[in-house]
Amino acid sequence: KFGEAELEDMVGAVTGLAWTEVGGDLLTIEAVKMPGKGKVTITGKLGEVMQESIQAARSYVRSRAVDYGIRPTVFEQADIHIHVPEGATPKDGPSAGIAMVTSIVSVLTGIPVNRSVAMTGEVTLRGRVLPIGGLKEKLLAALHGGIKTVLIPRDNEKDLADIPANVKKGLTIIPVSHVDDVLAHALLKPLTPIEWPERTDDKAADTSRDEASEQGEAPGARAH
Amino acid sequence: KFGEAELEDMVGAVTGLAWTEVGGDLLTIEAVKMPGKGKVTITGKLGEVMQESIQAARSYVRSRAVDYGIRPTVFEQADIHIHVPEGATPKDGPSAGIAMVTSIVSVLTGIPVNRSVAMTGEVTLRGRVLPIGGLKEKLLAALHGGIKTVLIPRDNEKDLADIPANVKKGLTIIPVSHVDDVLAHALLKPLTPIEWPERTDDKAADTSRDEASEQGEAPGARAH
Amino acid sequence: KFGEAELEDMVGAVTGLAWTEVGGDLLTIEAVKMPGKGKVTITGKLGEVMQESIQAARSYVRSRAVDYGIRPTVFEQADIHIHVPEGATPKDGPSAGIAMVTSIVSVLTGIPVNRSVAMTGEVTLRGRVLPIGGLKEKLLAALHGGIKTVLIPRDNEKDLADIPANVKKGLTIIPVSHVDDVLAHALLKPLTPIEWPERTDDKAADTSRDEASEQGEAPGARAH
Amino acid sequence: KFGEAELEDMVGAVTGLAWTEVGGDLLTIEAVKMPGKGKVTITGKLGEVMQESIQAARSYVRSRAVDYGIRPTVFEQADIHIHVPEGATPKDGPSAGIAMVTSIVSVLTGIPVNRSVAMTGEVTLRGRVLPIGGLKEKLLAALHGGIKTVLIPRDNEKDLADIPANVKKGLTIIPVSHVDDVLAHALLKPLTPIEWPERTDDKAADTSRDEASEQGEAPGARAH
Amino acid sequence: KFGEAELEDMVGAVTGLAWTEVGGDLLTIEAVKMPGKGKVTITGKLGEVMQESIQAARSYVRSRAVDYGIRPTVFEQADIHIHVPEGATPKDGPSAGIAMVTSIVSVLTGIPVNRSVAMTGEVTLRGRVLPIGGLKEKLLAALHGGIKTVLIPRDNEKDLADIPANVKKGLTIIPVSHVDDVLAHALLKPLTPIEWPERTDDKAADTSRDEASEQGEAPGARAH
Amino acid sequence: KFGEAELEDMVGAVTGLAWTEVGGDLLTIEAVKMPGKGKVTITGKLGEVMQESIQAARSYVRSRAVDYGIRPTVFEQADIHIHVPEGATPKDGPSAGIAMVTSIVSVLTGIPVNRSVAMTGEVTLRGRVLPIGGLKEKLLAALHGGIKTVLIPRDNEKDLADIPANVKKGLTIIPVSHVDDVLAHALLKPLTPIEWPERTDDKAADTSRDEASEQGEAPGARAH
Ligand SMILES: [Ca+2]
Ligand SMILES: [Ca+2]
Ligand SMILES: [Ca+2]
Ligand SMILES: [Ca+2]
Ligand SMILES: [Ca+2]
Ligand SMILES: [Ca+2]
Ligand SMILES: [Ca+2]
Ligand SMILES: [Ca+2]
Ligand SMILES: [Ca+2]
Ligand SMILES: [Ca+2]
Ligand SMILES: [Ca+2]
Ligand SMILES: [Ca+2]
Repeated sequence: KFGEAELEDMVGAVTGLAWTEVGGDLLTIEAVKMPGKGKVTITGKLGEVMQESIQAARSYVRSRAVDYGIRPTVFEQADIHIHVPEGATPKDGPSAGIAMVTSIVSVLTGIPVNRSVAMTGEVTLRGRVLPIGGLKEKLLAALHGGIKTVLIPRDNEKDLADIPANVKKGLTIIPVSHVDDVLAHALLKPLTPIEWPERTDDKAADTSRDEASEQGEAPGARAH
Repeated sequence: KFGEAELEDMVGAVTGLAWTEVGGDLLTIEAVKMPGKGKVTITGKLGEVMQESIQAARSYVRSRAVDYGIRPTVFEQADIHIHVPEGATPKDGPSAGIAMVTSIVSVLTGIPVNRSVAMTGEVTLRGRVLPIGGLKEKLLAALHGGIKTVLIPRDNEKDLADIPANVKKGLTIIPVSHVDDVLAHALLKPLTPIEWPERTDDKAADTSRDEASEQGEAPGARAH
Repeated sequence: KFGEAELEDMVGAVTGLAWTEVGGDLLTIEAVKMPGKGKVTITGKLGEVMQESIQAARSYVRSRAVDYGIRPTVFEQADIHIHVPEGATPKDGPSAGIAMVTSIVSVLTGIPVNRSVAMTGEVTLRGRVLPIGGLKEKLLAALHGGIKTVLIPRDNEKDLADIPANVKKGLTIIPVSHVDDVLAHALLKPLTPIEWPERTDDKAADTSRDEASEQGEAPGARAH
Repeated sequence: KFGEAELEDMVGAVTGLAWTEVGGDLLTIEAVKMPGKGKVTITGKLGEVMQESIQAARSYVRSRAVDYGIRPTVFEQADIHIHVPEGATPKDGPSAGIAMVTSIVSVLTGIPVNRSVAMTGEVTLRGRVLPIGGLKEKLLAALHGGIKTVLIPRDNEKDLADIPANVKKGLTIIPVSHVDDVLAHALLKPLTPIEWPERTDDKAADTSRDEASEQGEAPGARAH
Repeated sequence: KFGEAELEDMVGAVTGLAWTEVGGDLLTIEAVKMPGKGKVTITGKLGEVMQESIQAARSYVRSRAVDYGIRPTVFEQADIHIHVPEGATPKDGPSAGIAMVTSIVSVLTGIPVNRSVAMTGEVTLRGRVLPIGGLKEKLLAALHGGIKTVLIPRDNEKDLADIPANVKKGLTIIPVSHVDDVLAHALLKPLTPIEWPERTDDKAADTSRDEASEQGEAPGARAH
Repeated sequence: KFGEAELEDMVGAVTGLAWTEVGGDLLTIEAVKMPGKGKVTITGKLGEVMQESIQAARSYVRSRAVDYGIRPTVFEQADIHIHVPEGATPKDGPSAGIAMVTSIVSVLTGIPVNRSVAMTGEVTLRGRVLPIGGLKEKLLAALHGGIKTVLIPRDNEKDLADIPANVKKGLTIIPVSHVDDVLAHALLKPLTPIEWPERTDDKAADTSRDEASEQGEAPGARAH
């Protein structure tokens, strides 16, 4: 039995694609934001690698916050809970990374996610999309689950040769190499950068370098 | 030997349904609220999945607090202890999720739970009710334990075909797809939303978006 | 060799009853209160279930504090250490629950415990007394240890049929269904409720509900 | 090879007696006090039971602080490190309990320990001395190590019948039933109680009970 | 299949060299800096030894901060996340130490790393470069991955005799004995020391020694 | 292959001696001091016993701080990182204790360590030096590594009879019984005590005893 696409566009809910020995499956990632102190709660019987991919997703978003229209202070003033139902099924692996990024950006900006889009891809701290395994099974699950568009890593594009024609016909398959591409396809509204005053905590500093700008630009430096 | 329904309507106490290899059983979930700092204590020899389902239940309630008439500050100013007697029996699985939500809402609002109602269903962060296993055994336990009404996941409705007629006759079985339905059936009084002023922690912000409203609406977006 | 009853009435020290494959034994529970910040230390080679039963006992007492004449602030201003000698013997199980409640109430109120009373019974968060195993061995141990009165769960009353006549003759056996009954029999002075002003932390609240009263009444709602 | 008695009377250093399958041994317990915040560090490859016996020893001393001439505030303003050389040898069991109490009282009062005294005995939270195993081997180790006086639990007095005459002749063996007896024999100066003003943290209290006095008297209530 | 060199010079991203039974591989180390409180997050399925090498790298950089043009306060006012994709592949060993140092210095100074440089070498707390294993496999991986310059430990220089001529021809191999050499070759701009006022926290001190200068000089004392 | 002596005198770096089944080895202990809050970081794949010996070394130094010319406040205002390269080699045992003390004293006073001195010996909380194993292998490693002077525990002096004459000829072997002897031989400058005002935190105290002086003297009481 296959999962099903969501019935409505949602804030914080993203459809990922899982792959096990018995086939592919849709995986819902849910995120909620609550007033708090920056705590991140992760549930859903997730293995170490998937938990680490959530940490990396969060740090990536945090380092790009201003570009994505997210107030940096939200990472100290709100708690986030990320949950992957179904709670009794063990889940692991890094391939939900870009779905985690999308879920976090959605819940922090309030922009809903397109419910007809599913995605798979590992994410790095700099927002790059790394290749994944089980592409065929994942695409089959997406097709049977009512998904229309699937975002896959550009490095998996070469594997499309092995995918049955009817699957490729039934789905719009979009290769992506950076998280910015993912967000452009998955969110229902474009992200708009905000202005944010630089921090000036250091009273006793004699340097002319501009820490705040480093921070805003560095992690966003893209390499393609 | 089967459990028994509670003798009085109670605040914070909910009857769940458990299922093991040797049959179904009633499971009491107890919650108490104490002055504190937001700490959650969980006891009753609960496995990892059941503990995670309590965390998800709490975050769901927290993200819907205002809608349910709960002051958001209570999550920072009160400790909650959730206990599942009997303490020597190991318990696990996500199927007590909706009972956990009900217990938490009851103890935080002070509204008692209808003692003749039992329930089973996994809950997601967005309040959806996911299907469970062991429906037959659970319904039998409910019947023998004196329960009158059982809330089950709508996705388990199809399994009712396999349930003996006398069980279906002896119980009012109500399929539910969202936690709002659960609370409407289980609590003895309706929930009444409260007004809550928005937080304005951010001194240095130039955005026109309204974070507080995002937060109030987003997690409550329902998809049916 | 059997344990022995205490030689003097004591504050914070309660006689429980343990049961192993080689027979029953008296178990002393000791509690001391120290100036602190609400920390609870538990020692005596206790298993997970017994440690959880102490947490449940403490939360129960905390939720009933005012009724029992205990200032709620003591849970933030005092540390409690609960120890079960003999430190080299592993101990586990939920059946010392009501002894834990009694020990905590005694040390927090300063009211001594009747040294001729022993007790066994699991406690729930709402103060109910649940049945235990090994009643026969426990009663034998109590008799040989010089105990005069034993409090047992009402749900174990049916097991008294299997107890030898001389044991039943040598002991006053009192079935109890709620912790209030336990405390009435075990403490040397009656508990006297105190008045306590309600907390009003919430500056920005528009509700007419009375949180403090909920809290005082709810967990104390009894069902018999 | 046997351990040896210390060459000088020391503050914070106490000679305990250990017992393994290959015989008895002297065990030095060392404690130092440092400015801090009440942290307790325990080292020396100690097993769980010995670590718990140190916690119990500390709580006992803390609950009797004023009687022993120790300012209660020291438990919040000083760190204590307890170490048992030799660091590569695993050590466990509750029988060093009274030595732990003596070490802590010595380091907190500055009163040296009599270097010719060794001791063995489990301690309870109320200061009682419980019996131990391996008495014969321990006494032999004490004799060969140059110890003159050995404190043993009164409940082990009956085991003296099995001890060789030359051992009993070479040692002054003193049975003790309470920690007060231990301290009277082991410390080089008597303990002198101090006056300490009662805490009055509770602004909003209407009770006539006297919490501070409870606390001072209760844990010290002795039962012999 | 071999990794590939990065396509652009990057801030915080460094190419290390890994070695397993099946050959060498390029390893990307990524670091991002975020406003925070000095927390360090480490992800990428890293073993204990690699995690410890990151801790050592950070402490080394922290002890040399002023020399490297890094404000010491950044270690209390920023969080750093270090991630090593690919998240599903276990990684361990100390040989990425100098790459970790380079990544941290780059992200904290904002100076990009030369993308054509790869490196391998354990780092000590004093910045020394210790020898590593698998030099041949690592150099092969570097060559095939498009790397032009490889920094290796001076103590591995003797192993170059076993390296095929074509590998040595295709790569510029630079032996290094101290981290200062590593940074000089890997960063695109030279590091410029900053002035930093000494801390004067100690109100009640009568010493003439200069703590701040100790701290600046001591860890930087080099031994070659 | 043997380790080698350091090429320069160093602050915070000490040469210890390790012993495994395959022979002896030099072991470098590195310490750096950083502005902080008293945190101690320990790396180098160290086993539990070696980690505990570092804790004991630190507490010893802390309790003797004023005598050694170290401001007591440094233990709350600086972090220390102790690392033992090579990071992939597991290390354990208590015999590096005196090297740990020397490293900590050196880094906190800024006094360099004599690079031609190596040392081995367990340390107790009172600064005593306890005997170690593998003396022969350790001395051989020292000789081959270019060490000139080796500090050994006085209780190992008797083992020198088994050491080959050429080893004893090539090394100056100095038996030590207390850490004060170790520091006198290993540091390049003598330690000079500082004056430090006594703490007077206790507002409400009526005792005439002098806590600060206890603290300064007690842990330093030596027994030889
Ligand atoms: Ca599924
Ligand atoms: Ca399920
Ligand atoms: Ca049951
Ligand atoms: Ca039970
Ligand atoms: Ca016993
Ligand atoms: Ca024992
Ligand atoms: Ca020994
Ligand atoms: Ca040893
Ligand atoms: Ca690779
Ligand atoms: Ca992968
Ligand atoms: Ca070596
Ligand atoms: Ca190595």
